This record gives sequence, C-alpha cells and structure tokens, in this order.
Amino acid sequence: MKQQERAVRTRRALVHSAAEAFERHGYVQARLARISADAGVSPGALHFHFENKAALARAVQASAGRRLRRAVGTAARRPGANALQRLTDTSHALAEQLRTDVVARAGYRLSREQTHTTAHHGGQDLCGQWQTYVRQQLTEAARHNLLTDAATSHETAAAIVAATTGLEALARSDATWLSHETLTHWWELALRCLAAPTALATLRPAGTHTPRPPHPQ
Amino acid sequence: MKQQERAVRTRRALVHSAAEAFERHGYVQARLARISADAGVSPGALHFHFENKAALARAVQASAGRRLRRAVGTAARRPGANALQRLTDTSHALAEQLRTDVVARAGYRLSREQTHTTAHHGGQDLCGQWQTYVRQQLTEAARHNLLTDAATSHETAAAIVAATTGLEALARSDATWLSHETLTHWWELALRCLAAPTALATLRPAGTHTPRPPHPQ
Repeated sequence: MKQQERAVRTRRALVHSAAEAFERHGYVQARLARISADAGVSPGALHFHFENKAALARAVQASAGRRLRRAVGTAARRPGANALQRLTDTSHALAEQLRTDVVARAGYRLSREQTHTTAHHGGQDLCGQWQTYVRQQLTEAARHNLLTDAATSHETAAAIVAATTGLEALARSDATWLSHETLTHWWELALRCLAAPTALATLRPAGTHTPRPPHPQ
Repeated sequence: MKQQERAVRTRRALVHSAAEAFERHGYVQARLARISADAGVSPGALHFHFENKAALARAVQASAGRRLRRAVGTAARRPGANALQRLTDTSHALAEQLRTDVVARAGYRLSREQTHTTAHHGGQDLCGQWQTYVRQQLTEAARHNLLTDAATSHETAAAIVAATTGLEALARSDATWLSHETLTHWWELALRCLAAPTALATLRPAGTHTPRPPHPQ
C-alpha cells in the first residue's frame, strides 16, 4: 500500500514536471532528463512510469481533461441556471483552471496544437469537447427561446468557439486575455448580442460563481 | 545581373521551402537538409543565404509581413469605405492570403507562437500589427458614430481580435474556419451587434472585394 501511494505520488510529480517543461520549452524541446530531475526522481523512475515523451504528453492531456471536467462540473450541471448562464459559468470555470493550473494549461495546448506535437499519439481532443459543449448549450438555448431571432444557434456557437479559442491562444503571450475581467467584458458584449431581451435581464456575464483568488504555481 | 537574379530566385525558393517545412513539421522539427533539398539547392547554398534555421524563420516572417501588407493594401486604404467596412474588407483579404499562401500562413503562425519558437530571434510581430490595426479602425469607427452606444471601441476591438485570432488558430486543424463563408457569417453576426443601425444598412459582411478562387499550393 505504501509503495503504491509512492508510485501515485511519483507519477503525479512527473506529470506536473512534464507540464511545466512543455509550457516553458514546447513539447518538442522539452527534455526528459530535466523533467525527471525537476520531479525529484531518477531517469529510471521516469521510464518505469512512462515509455517516452509521447506517453507523458498523453498523461498530461488525460490529467488536464479530468481537472477541466472537474472544474466545470458544478457550473455545467447547475440545475436552476439556463443554458446561456451555464455556458457563461462554464467558460469562467475553464478560464480559472487554465489560469491557475499548469497541467490544465499544458494539456489544453497539446490538444489545440495536436497536429504538430502529439498527432497520432492518441491525445485527448479537449478543444473538440469544448466545441461540442458550446453547440449543445446553444441548441438548448434556442429551444428555450433564449436567443435573439437574428442568429442561428449554429452561427452563434461558431462565434463563441472562435472567441474563446482566441482568448486562450492570446493568453499564451499575455495572460490578461484570459483574466476574469476580460472574459466578463467579452460576455457582456456577447450576451447583449445573442440573448433575447427577456433572457438578458437575468444573465450574469461575470458568472454566478465567485472565482478563487489567483495563487502562485 | 544574371547571377543576382539567380540569387534572388534561390533565396525565394528557400523561404518557400522553409515555410512548407515549418507548416508541415513545426519550426523545431523542420530539418535544414530537407528544406534545401525541396528548394532544389545544395546545403551549402542554403548556408550561403541563411546562417541558421532562426534566420530562415525571420525571412519567412518578413516575407509573410510583406505579402499580408500587400494583400490588405487596397482594402486598408480604400478611400470611400468607412472604418467598419475597411476592417471587414481587410480581414477578408488577410484570410484569403492565409488560405492560399503557405509563406503568409507559416510567417503568421511563427509570429503567433513566438514565445516557443523564434522568441528573442527578432521575428516580426504580425499578430501585434493586426491588433493595432483593429484598434485604430474601431477608434475611427467610434469617432464617426458607426458603433452602437452599448460597447466601447476598446472592448469591441478586443472581441474582434479574440475572434479573428481564434479563427486562424482553429483553421490549423480545419481550414473551413477561415473560409470566406465562415468569416462572412461571423461578420454578419458581429456587425449586427456592434454597428449603429444607420451604419449597418450600408455594410457588406462578405466584403466589397470578390475573392480570387482558391488555387493549389
């Protein structure tokens, strides 16, 4: 049992260290020797847990997927909220996780840049999961007459996917693009455009959940 | 003179070949031997023109900058159009260039992913130039009362930068995100939200310029 706990801890430290290396140097330039050293384990221990760098990238993506799903869990399933508020809340929860959690950030980026890094390595399609979620919420919003008549739910979903993808990509060089404030301003603008006037009055662009204060990595 | 022409042609072939390699394999994994072979020149000729891969990346970015500026030139300076139509037209011209020109695409991406590839190598900030242009047009649009009262020009500019950045990033794995049709649908939605009703009637979300038919690379 003790040995098993130690193995779990070692694996977790390696995933964290790999995420930091991928974020700092990019997947291709990240070095396994550095990843094991920063995790405080031997190169042999790394190879006991992970066959190669691609296996580490898969583990980072899988962990990021779990963390992001856990982070949005409450927001995504809140029973009282309508689909637009749920989508707003979920985006805030995702952004907060990306801001504060290097594993979530690294895994999401590996997913977005899949074609150049972990293609054909069985990585998770986290971006695709977000796109599907946005489309589902917009379809439900349309069904409940929450949208203006002007836009189809399909076009609105595409616009939301484009903007949120852009905010995440821009935040790579300037973190304020993914701040709670920037995202709130964006939702103020977006909801005013896409929500039916009756729905708009009840919606909170800042989300219905108070974010945790940022903490250092 | 003949020798000089040949040198210009060789340099151009190397930049094109490097752009293709960066797009296919990513900057880090692109191999100089392959770049020179695909350009039909010797490794020695490559090294005569470019000291190393970073110098090639700088040349790709500089060429992309010239091509993108030339592509948007007419749209960006059209005298009759107002700032919102100019911005719409410019985005279409940029998207068309990115769709059809591998050097523009590679250079733009190198600029966007600067932190991980060509940081500190003196690459051009093409994304930054686009952001500045968007802000300028929105400031002018506000001055000419083209915007609804609801949004500030600053927030609207941020939303347009986020969406266009997202479309370019998404197009990396699915080119339809940067198609003329997708961009037109996005502008229909965006202009309806941000343009004052009097301005909206005259605006053409598809742009005032008919795009060239796509041609193979």
